[in-house]
Order: sequence, then C-alpha cells, then structure tokens
Amino acid sequence: MKIIKPALILCSVLMVLNVKAQSDEKVFKTIYTQSLTNGKSYDWLDHLSNQIGSRLSGSLGAAKAVVYTKEELEKLGLDKVWLQSVMVPRWIRGTKEYAFIESEPGKTTTVNICALGGSIATPALGIKANVIEVKNFEELEAYGREKIEGKIVFYNRPMQADLISTFEAYGGCVNQRYKGAAEAIKYGAVGVIVRSMNLRLDDFPHTGSMTYDNIPVEKRIPSAAISTNDAELLSTMLKLNKDIKFYFKQSCKQLKDVQSYNVIGEITGSEFPNEYMVVGGHLDSWDLGDGSHDDGAGVVQSMDVLRLLKESGIKPKRSIRVVLFMNEENGLRGGKKYAEEAKRKGENHVFALESDAGGFTPRGFSFDCSEASFNQILSWQHLFKPYLIHYFEKGGTGADVGPLKTNSNVLAGLRPDSQRYFDHHHASNDTFDAVNKRELELGAATMTALVYLFDKYGVNPIANKDKIKK
Amino acid sequence: MKIIKPALILCSVLMVLNVKAQSDEKVFKTIYTQSLTNGKSYDWLDHLSNQIGSRLSGSLGAAKAVVYTKEELEKLGLDKVWLQSVMVPRWIRGTKEYAFIESEPGKTTTVNICALGGSIATPALGIKANVIEVKNFEELEAYGREKIEGKIVFYNRPMQADLISTFEAYGGCVNQRYKGAAEAIKYGAVGVIVRSMNLRLDDFPHTGSMTYDNIPVEKRIPSAAISTNDAELLSTMLKLNKDIKFYFKQSCKQLKDVQSYNVIGEITGSEFPNEYMVVGGHLDSWDLGDGSHDDGAGVVQSMDVLRLLKESGIKPKRSIRVVLFMNEENGLRGGKKYAEEAKRKGENHVFALESDAGGFTPRGFSFDCSEASFNQILSWQHLFKPYLIHYFEKGGTGADVGPLKTNSNVLAGLRPDSQRYFDHHHASNDTFDAVNKRELELGAATMTALVYLFDKYGVNPIANKDKIKK
Repeated sequence: MKIIKPALILCSVLMVLNVKAQSDEKVFKTIYTQSLTNGKSYDWLDHLSNQIGSRLSGSLGAAKAVVYTKEELEKLGLDKVWLQSVMVPRWIRGTKEYAFIESEPGKTTTVNICALGGSIATPALGIKANVIEVKNFEELEAYGREKIEGKIVFYNRPMQADLISTFEAYGGCVNQRYKGAAEAIKYGAVGVIVRSMNLRLDDFPHTGSMTYDNIPVEKRIPSAAISTNDAELLSTMLKLNKDIKFYFKQSCKQLKDVQSYNVIGEITGSEFPNEYMVVGGHLDSWDLGDGSHDDGAGVVQSMDVLRLLKESGIKPKRSIRVVLFMNEENGLRGGKKYAEEAKRKGENHVFALESDAGGFTPRGFSFDCSEASFNQILSWQHLFKPYLIHYFEKGGTGADVGPLKTNSNVLAGLRPDSQRYFDHHHASNDTFDAVNKRELELGAATMTALVYLFDKYGVNPIANKDKIKK
Repeated sequence: MKIIKPALILCSVLMVLNVKAQSDEKVFKTIYTQSLTNGKSYDWLDHLSNQIGSRLSGSLGAAKAVVYTKEELEKLGLDKVWLQSVMVPRWIRGTKEYAFIESEPGKTTTVNICALGGSIATPALGIKANVIEVKNFEELEAYGREKIEGKIVFYNRPMQADLISTFEAYGGCVNQRYKGAAEAIKYGAVGVIVRSMNLRLDDFPHTGSMTYDNIPVEKRIPSAAISTNDAELLSTMLKLNKDIKFYFKQSCKQLKDVQSYNVIGEITGSEFPNEYMVVGGHLDSWDLGDGSHDDGAGVVQSMDVLRLLKESGIKPKRSIRVVLFMNEENGLRGGKKYAEEAKRKGENHVFALESDAGGFTPRGFSFDCSEASFNQILSWQHLFKPYLIHYFEKGGTGADVGPLKTNSNVLAGLRPDSQRYFDHHHASNDTFDAVNKRELELGAATMTALVYLFDKYGVNPIANKDKIKK
C-alpha cells in the first residue's frame, strides 16, 4: 500500500495554486527566463546540425533525425511520443554539379550551380548551348519557340530589394524556380538556369523544389540554380556577346518513394484532452547545408515549447502536441499525412503554430483565423511588448500546418526577423554557425508564450463559450 | 550671359512642389527604397573596414578614416564639409598578449586574453600569481587585503542572460571592466583579469576602456580581459584547486595626446539655418577587429542620412549636420569638443541622433526629451510600422551626442536588434562579414525618416510655436 503523505499533497496543491494564481506577466517572465538561461533548443540544434547534418527526405540524415528527436522527446517525460508513418519521395543529387560559361571555344569561366530539387540529370557528358536571358514568363512567351528552341533559358529576375519582408520578395520570384522548366519546355528549351533566390550577391547557389507539371519524362529538361554573383556575370557576358555558350552537367535522380515518419510528442490536456494544439517545424531539410535555419531551428524550438511549459510549471488544459513534419521541402507528405490522420480520427485541432522562417530574433506572428480570434490575439499584444514582440498580422502561416485549417481554428506562423534568411535558405551556408543562441531561444519562448495563452483562454472563447462550459 | 530656360525653372518648381506635396507615407517609401536599392552605406563600410581597418584614436587607421570620410562627404555636394580639431589620447597595445593557467609547475594551459584599453603593461617578463575569483566589488571587500594581497583578482560575473536588452546586461557587468583594477588596487592585488563582456561562450577576448581613477602611476596594476570560454575554464580549475597560478604578459602603453579631428558635413537649412540637427556615429574603434559594428555602421549610416535626404528630393528647413566623432571609445574627446564649440558659437542644437549600437536590423529609437516632444514622436509611430520599426521608448541615446543635451532639445539613439551585438563588441570578430547589407541600409533609412520628420515638423512645435512662426 502506498502512503501519500499529507505534506506532499499540500505541497502539490500549493504549487498548482501558485501557477494558476500567477499573472500572465509573471508566467511570461518565467517562460522567457527558462528559455534564455536553461533552454535546450541550441544544444538540440547543435546535434541535429553538426552530428546528423542535412536531412533531405529519404536520406540517412532524415532517418537519423527521426530516431534522435524521438529519443530526445522521450527524455522529456511527455504523456505520449510516437512516430507517424509516411511515404516520402527520394531525390538524390549525385555527383556535384559542374558548369562554365564559354565565351569562345577553349575560353571558359567556371560558375557555381546546383541542381534544383526534382530536376532530372543532364546527359552524362552535360549540355552545352546558347543562352537566352529572360526576366519572366511573359518575356519567354514573347521570344517564342523560334528564339528559344535548342537554347538554355536563363531566368534572371532578382528578388525585389525594396520590400521590407524578404519573404514577400521571395514570393515575387520563386515561380522562376518552381515552374521555370515546365514553361521553358513549351518553347523547346534544352535546359534551365535560374538566378538563386538570394538578395545578396555571393557565390552560393540555392536549391529548392521545382515541378515538371504533367510533362512526360522523355520531354523533361534539366534545371539548376546559379549563384547571384554568377547570374550577374552571365548576364553581363550575354550583353557583350549573345553568342556565348553555357555548359552544365548534373547527375541527380528521382528514386522510388521510401518509408519515413513524422515525429510526435504530446502533453495530454487536463480539462479538454480532445482539443488539440499543435506546435511544429519540419524535420527534413535540403541537402546542401545542414538545414540549421530551414528548419532545424523550427524543430528544436517546437520541441522546447513542450519542455518549457513543463519547466515553467504550466499544466495545459488542452492536449499540446509537438509535430516534427517530414518532407516539407519536396512534397509536404508529412503535413498532409498528419492532417489526414487527424481528420480520420476526428481529432479537433483548435490551434496550430509553425516555426519555419529561420531561427532569427522573433518579431511576432502571422495568423490565419477569424476576426473574433484575431481580436482576441490583439488583446494579448501588451504581454509580448517587454520581449520586443510587436508583429501581429493576418497572413500565411506554415506549409505543414496549412492542411489543418478549419473554419473555426487558428493557424499561426512565427515571424522572425527576415533580413538574413535568404542569405542562407536552401544553400550550403545554411549552417549552425549562422544561428545565434539567444535569437533561437527567444523564438522558443515566444512560441511557448502564445501556446500558453491559447491553452489558458481557449480559441475564440466567445464563439466557443457553450462548448468550453461543458 | 547665362540664359535660364523657362522650362527648366518650371521643372524645378514642379519637383519642389511635388516633394512638398507628398504625404509622409510617400516620403518614407522613397527614403527606404533609396536606401535599399541605391544605398551607399555598405560600400562605405566595406572601404572603412577592409581598406582602412581598425581606427583606435591616434592610430594611422583613425587618421586615414578622417581623410577618407571627409573626401566622401565632399563628393556628396553638401553645403559645407570640414574638420574640427581635437586632441586625443593615444594608447597602443604593443606585442600581442600572452597568458596561461599553471595548474602545477610546468603544466600550463594557454588562454585568450587582451589588455584593457588604458591598462599599463606587465613587467617585461610578465606576472605570475595566485588567483582570487570574485563576482563583484562587495565580494572583493569581504575578502579584504589579507586574502587579496599579492594575487590576481579575477572578476567573473557573467552578463545576465535573461534580460531581453543585451545593453542592459552589459550595463550590469561593465563596472568590473571599467573600475575593476582601481578597486583591486585598494587591497594589494597585482593584476586584474576580467571575464569578457560577451553573452556567448567563445574564444574571443573583448577589450574596452578602464580607469585607474586618481591612483598614481607607480601603484597601477595591469588589467586584461579573458574570453568567456577561458573564464569558465579558469573558474572550474580554481574550484578544483585554489592554488593554481595565472601568468600574463602585456606590453601596452599610454603615449602623449595627438592631434585628431571630428569630421563634419552640413546641409544648410532653407528656413531655419540657425537650428541645427545632428546625426552621427563615432569614427574611432577599438584596435582588435575592424570596428564594423562599433561604430563603422553608425558612421556610414549617418553619412548616408544626408545623401538619402538629397536623393529623396528633401530640402531641409533646418541645418542638418553629420558629425563623425573621434575618440568615443577611450575619452569622448570628440563629443565633448563638438558640444563645447557649439556652445561657444551659440549654435542652437534642437536635435541630435546617434547610431552606436551596431548595424543590425533597426527596431526603433530611444529618446532623451520632454514629455511634449515624446508625445509628438509617438504620434509618428504609425509611419514607421510598415518598416517594422516599433520601439519608441525614453532612455539613453548615445555617448557622443550626450554633451549636446539642453532642456528643450531632443536626443535620440537608434536601437537595432541587440542580440548579436556583444558577440562582436570590442573583439577581433567585429568585422565586416558580421554586418548584413540590408540591415545596415534599413538603419540608415530609419534614421533619415526620423530626421525628415523632425525637420518638417520641428522639435516640440507647441512649446516653440512662436519661434517657428517668426
């Protein structure tokens, strides 16, 4: 027989009362202090980036990351930790790409390229052809088949520097990368070279996903990104002599789908266990760097949200899940699978927050929700102000949580400072040294604080009043 | 005879009308677009950091920086550019410092130190002594002469990680560095080692100014900073064995004062030429890195404010001066001299803005001003919001502009994101590569926007209404 001592009971009761009685201001202070003085996110990221490295879907790194993060979540004493099976595409880069500009036979300048994710290889000996530079699909159409056939199309529309949000600048350019080959094929192009999605002039080529739409395999053409410095060089050389040639060789390949997993941990809610709140990032990354900002940061911050809740003495009323999604970069299979399973099981997901915009200083959140919920959020702004969190706007949230959207729930995306993000995004310099410990920890704390508020006050409590009362 | 064509006059008139008629929102957009697409700050910083390098007062680098920035300001077509003479202290580091921990005779571990600015040298063969670790001056006093005499005092109070503003954390620690030697001398210490003012654990020692107060030269003891990693190591080794010894050798020296200059450029006001508005940073830096963040960034941003005003078609009503102050780091002679001269000439300085907190993403400003002026400033907040500038608080501004304070004027300090600043501050990794072009340019634009508003609306227009009406 187990004897429970009255003193112990009293102690527990006092602790719970103590946490419950604390003002939101005090809880916020506890959360931020915990993260900045006792955070785990940076250590986890160190392992993920420096011991495991890149984590492209289907790779050994991705498999190792599944095992590692599951083990780490298990150490936290959550109520449940499990893997959710998902089949993912497997694309491999193969031998490093090689490219040069040939101004005249025998006179060549090597340039920095990388195959786009999903691209086919060039023939084994590579492709050499004249180049036609365009800024957009309208210019491509204006040139037409006569000017384009047999050539390499060079998309060279830079990211717009005068936009404050670099994500907006990315949004204005990324169709070149994603659809560039599919469009160029229509006019008989033999290959595609795309200016890297990078606001800075440097030597790193930036990969990323691309599509051939429904174009049959035999008609597909290889597609690669070129560094911004080399895009400028190529453009200048074309202005001097439009007859220069471009050579590139890449040996990437799409293999069969392979087994992988979303990694999930849960603190089961004490009052409303059937209301689920998700916090997550994506465990896969591109293969060039170690994926520290995209999205190692989001993974470790999300893991730390659950740990910080526990460390801060918060016992959630709702079930809080951390979900480490697989395959955001080239398929979104993990995000889709999680939402499918949630729907199949009838799980009511009232809130989902993703961190997938880098590990930089958090500035706030963007929200996809009703006006009523947004007004509720705005009423919390003053709590975040001492932590220099000012940005609360409606907008896009995160690719992985997108499929969870319903009419009544709230989706949110952490919005860190975006100025440096595209210097590293999808490139070999997305590495651990580019992440600042404090910035990462401030992000984890900011996410935890928002989760705490939504758990405490509920999502859109006026509309949901009756349900919550039950 | 010069014939002025009516069309030209009309064109000029229209341009001026056009600028005058523009809403503040449009002017802001023009300023930010100019800075982000056509800014000069980054190119100037490249030269200052990579062609000139460190700029400690009295050094060749400082002299070169005076010549270079004067020439660059002259190219901008300002109304006046001149040098203001100021005598500055000259301290030199000499041969690189060397230090080790000796756990037993012959068993040593080399550690990373650097002399503090203003420190004396050790004897030519160095100093070796036992170490006493303290967290603050109270502990020092509690140990007393008996425990301290003949030993090296090791100040090891870390910057407080749970503070959101790293400047606040710096403020809570820097007395160890500045006054540590002066305090330790009272108890017979033979040397001082101070934990670097850095929140991160790394191998860079961070220099900075220190004082001996009025202690006579023969009683002074050498003082150096140790990297945070090595501070942790030394502390751990002391816990294991309090009899370990510390050896250090440094050959720094205070030389005679030398001639130097503040660099000043002016756009003379069209309506109130006798009301002066200053924007500035300090041209000198410490000698270890190239001073890119401290304060190359502030220098080039301030220079660009005047250029951006011109490029944006703004013709200031008041006289706008860029002042590149000499000797902020170890004497503040430039700041004091500028204010003295302003007072002597009876120049009415209504506003002064300093950028001396790094070239990171701007978050807002701190202000030293009346309530009336602060309310005026708060009424402008909405204009800054699209540029993610949210921070408007009362507080410290900048050391160089401090001496300009009057009862009626407004002092301001640009407040960039502070999380990474002390990773680089006063250390050999304060280098150009740590500055992001867009972040720097956003700072320059934000400063320009504030100057534009104060010039247009005047400082505290209600209190100054009559004067402005004249």
